[in-house]
Amino acid sequence: CHINPKEIAQDRKFENITQLWLGGDHYKWRLMRANGIAEKFITGNGSDEEKFHKWAQTLERAIGNPLYHWSHLELQRYFDYKKPLGEKTWRECWQICNEKLQSPSMSARKIIERSNVKLICTTDDPADSLRWHQQIRDDKTFNVKVLPAWRPDQAMCIEKPAFLDYLKTLSAVSSVEINSFASLKEALIKRLDFFASLGAKASDHGPDFVYFYPADEAEIEGIFAARLAGKNISKLDELKFKTAFLLFSAKQYHRLGWVMQLHFSCKRDNNTRALQTLGINTGYDCINNLAPGAQIADFLNELDKTNQLPKTILYSLNPNDDDMLNTIANCFQSEGVLSKVQQGSAWWFNDHLPGMKKQMIAVASSGMLANFVGMLTDSRSFISYPRHEYFRRILCDLIGGWVESGQYPNDLEALGKIVEDISYNNVVNFFGFQL
Amino acid sequence: CHINPKEIAQDRKFENITQLWLGGDHYKWRLMRANGIAEKFITGNGSDEEKFHKWAQTLERAIGNPLYHWSHLELQRYFDYKKPLGEKTWRECWQICNEKLQSPSMSARKIIERSNVKLICTTDDPADSLRWHQQIRDDKTFNVKVLPAWRPDQAMCIEKPAFLDYLKTLSAVSSVEINSFASLKEALIKRLDFFASLGAKASDHGPDFVYFYPADEAEIEGIFAARLAGKNISKLDELKFKTAFLLFSAKQYHRLGWVMQLHFSCKRDNNTRALQTLGINTGYDCINNLAPGAQIADFLNELDKTNQLPKTILYSLNPNDDDMLNTIANCFQSEGVLSKVQQGSAWWFNDHLPGMKKQMIAVASSGMLANFVGMLTDSRSFISYPRHEYFRRILCDLIGGWVESGQYPNDLEALGKIVEDISYNNVVNFFGFQL
Amino acid sequence: CHINPKEIAQDRKFENITQLWLGGDHYKWRLMRANGIAEKFITGNGSDEEKFHKWAQTLERAIGNPLYHWSHLELQRYFDYKKPLGEKTWRECWQICNEKLQSPSMSARKIIERSNVKLICTTDDPADSLRWHQQIRDDKTFNVKVLPAWRPDQAMCIEKPAFLDYLKTLSAVSSVEINSFASLKEALIKRLDFFASLGAKASDHGPDFVYFYPADEAEIEGIFAARLAGKNISKLDELKFKTAFLLFSAKQYHRLGWVMQLHFSCKRDNNTRALQTLGINTGYDCINNLAPGAQIADFLNELDKTNQLPKTILYSLNPNDDDMLNTIANCFQSEGVLSKVQQGSAWWFNDHLPGMKKQMIAVASSGMLANFVGMLTDSRSFISYPRHEYFRRILCDLIGGWVESGQYPNDLEALGKIVEDISYNNVVNFFGFQL
Repeated sequence: CHINPKEIAQDRKFENITQLWLGGDHYKWRLMRANGIAEKFITGNGSDEEKFHKWAQTLERAIGNPLYHWSHLELQRYFDYKKPLGEKTWRECWQICNEKLQSPSMSARKIIERSNVKLICTTDDPADSLRWHQQIRDDKTFNVKVLPAWRPDQAMCIEKPAFLDYLKTLSAVSSVEINSFASLKEALIKRLDFFASLGAKASDHGPDFVYFYPADEAEIEGIFAARLAGKNISKLDELKFKTAFLLFSAKQYHRLGWVMQLHFSCKRDNNTRALQTLGINTGYDCINNLAPGAQIADFLNELDKTNQLPKTILYSLNPNDDDMLNTIANCFQSEGVLSKVQQGSAWWFNDHLPGMKKQMIAVASSGMLANFVGMLTDSRSFISYPRHEYFRRILCDLIGGWVESGQYPNDLEALGKIVEDISYNNVVNFFGFQL
Repeated sequence: CHINPKEIAQDRKFENITQLWLGGDHYKWRLMRANGIAEKFITGNGSDEEKFHKWAQTLERAIGNPLYHWSHLELQRYFDYKKPLGEKTWRECWQICNEKLQSPSMSARKIIERSNVKLICTTDDPADSLRWHQQIRDDKTFNVKVLPAWRPDQAMCIEKPAFLDYLKTLSAVSSVEINSFASLKEALIKRLDFFASLGAKASDHGPDFVYFYPADEAEIEGIFAARLAGKNISKLDELKFKTAFLLFSAKQYHRLGWVMQLHFSCKRDNNTRALQTLGINTGYDCINNLAPGAQIADFLNELDKTNQLPKTILYSLNPNDDDMLNTIANCFQSEGVLSKVQQGSAWWFNDHLPGMKKQMIAVASSGMLANFVGMLTDSRSFISYPRHEYFRRILCDLIGGWVESGQYPNDLEALGKIVEDISYNNVVNFFGFQL
Repeated sequence: CHINPKEIAQDRKFENITQLWLGGDHYKWRLMRANGIAEKFITGNGSDEEKFHKWAQTLERAIGNPLYHWSHLELQRYFDYKKPLGEKTWRECWQICNEKLQSPSMSARKIIERSNVKLICTTDDPADSLRWHQQIRDDKTFNVKVLPAWRPDQAMCIEKPAFLDYLKTLSAVSSVEINSFASLKEALIKRLDFFASLGAKASDHGPDFVYFYPADEAEIEGIFAARLAGKNISKLDELKFKTAFLLFSAKQYHRLGWVMQLHFSCKRDNNTRALQTLGINTGYDCINNLAPGAQIADFLNELDKTNQLPKTILYSLNPNDDDMLNTIANCFQSEGVLSKVQQGSAWWFNDHLPGMKKQMIAVASSGMLANFVGMLTDSRSFISYPRHEYFRRILCDLIGGWVESGQYPNDLEALGKIVEDISYNNVVNFFGFQL
């Protein structure tokens, strides 16, 4: 997920439901904007009560939207509030939720514990000190594991203006002077090992698409040197560098036994005015449709050639890629690992009932749904855990429908095993979590 | 829709059901061709009775096709004919329909009135005199509003052989000598204001895709001058010109408070032999799959940067674009307008039960279905209004299914409001129609 | 299908169910790999019994996969074995199946006959002697027609290292010295006529996508001469040659009254290590997403211009192409042929319940499902015929659902005719098989 580990370490409390629900959730912000709500009541200086009111007005009309489902599940599971939220109920709901939030049982840690969470992976930059992770680990009063996950996008995005500054930060943190691609890799390896020492098992990348523009080391060093010298580099050079970066990264994950997660086909920060006023990750991203399947396959094959392909989860924001990704994944399986390469759960804009159902049908139709590692919350919120319940309900509804129509026997032992595996066992085994 | 305003002004009557049904409906022509019917009985010199017979034979076998649904709805609603049309019934149906068509209640205007139509937008070229619209407006015996809609494709298609001739026509109509892109824009502005004076609220464009090849004014003027001089222009220059044309157009719609409609991902006139014998819009078009999402987003952003993005409806003929378009749209929403940018109803080849359902699920899953402006007939026929009934049934079936499975409460007041909004209120408010 | 005609001619017997089921079926191999099974027990030197055991373990967990459906149908129809295959039953199933395989009724020919097969089309290279087809034809003890089908990919793939060797083989078989594109065509025409003399009615091509890079004869001869001289040819030259090859081929099929089948959007042999150890067609292919619809339409139009477009079936491995392909097909229909150009049944990775249903809905929504030529097994197995039953069940379930929801009348005569046509009559008439 994208929870801030500091908030776990400090066991954050919430004054009101707006802070908890609307403070950082760009899913909700987008929906409010689509409902014509003024930005003042979304991210602006409207009062928390006004914001909750506007949200309630929006949600009431959001028929068919996953936020309708999630939000009501969250009200029921954490606040025992069972009415539909809307114009008629928002004031009552506001009061009840805020009262309950005053209870000690509604701190960040307590919410996590009562959600029956065993382990959390956050999302962290290689240059991050991981001090909050260390603090959580050393705090014996909290028994949920909180592991860092490696997200090195800033180290890959050679075209970004901030790239050189980032290299300085990384140099400082790693004590490796980064003056070449080789030394960048050396610095990253030190950080990888540090992340590993704190129990990291997962990596995550957010490339535009899965590139495959192979080039030899000398060419990559030339591109890197040009960038260091402040020269412009071409789009093709950028893609070659990123390919090399991803290949290097993947081989490291293979060395460490980590899982490689690739999240792609997103076009970010589409609204320039909003970017300038609100910054990134504020609800202005969209699905893109440019990921060439051939490059995904060739990228994985390049790693497989030398038997350095790590366990891999592919997530495309473009739901049209589902079937293709599953057929690509099943070209690179491996003895002794259940579906070593697999498609991840329906991501972000696809994280809703029809999207999750479609993704699971795609997995089942071309491979082993029973080996699927299942759901993740992908959320910044402490009460997003009912998304796992939402996922399990959709999974069971899908499987139950197959049984009812005679596509699988009504064998509760076998079915139960499959559901338990998808809901829990597979992810533990796939990532190698120690629980 | 694509109704000819002249036929409303003159209150056209129809001799028989073939004239009404098969006279200009390339949907039906295509289906007959797919059934191996000779062109003689489609657009050729077969008798109207023979053509109806062949159509009945085709329709009888068209299981699962929207024409099966529409045609029978039309027979029931306008002719009170309730049997399935086919080999056993075609002769009876032919006689009953033709008898009813002799009634004064079956003229173009009477059909429109009995269909409970409040307002029609036709599709009109900037150079059109709009004389029929003026005549209808001034005719106090007909109380349905018939507004022109602005469709300037001919003024954009710089690559077409007829472009220079079209400019002459537009020069004459606008009294602006068009010898530059600047003067083309001047001429168009005069025509836009004329359309607005007749109540126009809607524009429509049919680009191959939503281009974003920005260029400065000087470059565009250079391309325009080259074209005026009879020189060939490159594909890239064509795309730059079209981008500039669309950006200019959009800013005008913003100025006028109009809605911009973009219909794209169609490849037209694919059958050269048919084009030569039958002309355009005769049933030889197809879905294309080349619209880059990134350009759509960048195009809208360019307009948003200066706060000149008009209300916009995106229609792609490629149903794979549904989810992407909705996520793009929701990057450009605006205070005080319900879903200012939104995906339009399933268009043309997607205008059928599964296509409409899929489009509505996409809208709901990533935004506010309740703000959807809903159905349009997109038709050349006077009895196409049951498509709105077809749409509403599909909408209600979808929403009802959600209620039955517990995804929305069984609150008839809230549900009724949502359905009424999608069916009527939203489109009135979004376009700003005065009714 | 892809059955080896030699095995029909020699009436192959099978020692055990592993030989019959797992001997050459890369669908099953892929699924076992996705389940982490060691290659030893898939294509390696594990015993047949071990392989069956591993397969049973895999299948038991393959909920939602078409192999679950097919395999159990096959066990029921050919072995009267009705329990689910899995850890608890594999040993019993192994014994029962192997006993039954000892019966004379379980030879290749007997299986074909008891499956009520009337006619088989195999898949054959132009250079093939067709000796087994001749032998089967002349053998009066076997009354199922076994026809060759023309698959000239090796003659098209000018970029492949083996191309020049292949030309030598083809020269020898055809007695035409191939030293130009003109002489290649001459050789192919001789082989086409030979295939036709043995009753061939079908061709098949497997291009990456349907190319349309037109070039004149002189340019193609130049490319061909360069290749003969051992020079490298560019990607663009390759595409021009392949376009010319496909256009030539299509015109020949039109001359002969054959059907052109185009299977595209597959990326093959993605796993280099597996290719080197196991060879082609071993389960390492995937869906590709690069077929431009515009080129498909332009390719068909080029043939239609001179009225030389053969009956054509389009198969894309990318299920996203379904709707587009149907709209393209319906631009090129022809008098007297029921849906002369049509989309083929859901292919390979799409050959499952949701994929077949989706493809049939696409056909129905934009054309005449009743004219669909229906199912093919596309299989290397002698017991794959229940896939036709699987297809028919899905078809009838789809149509029945439409009747239940009022989208088509409950007219069993009309419905029965449609199902019979899709299941049998259409394919016989479309290909012009003499039965």
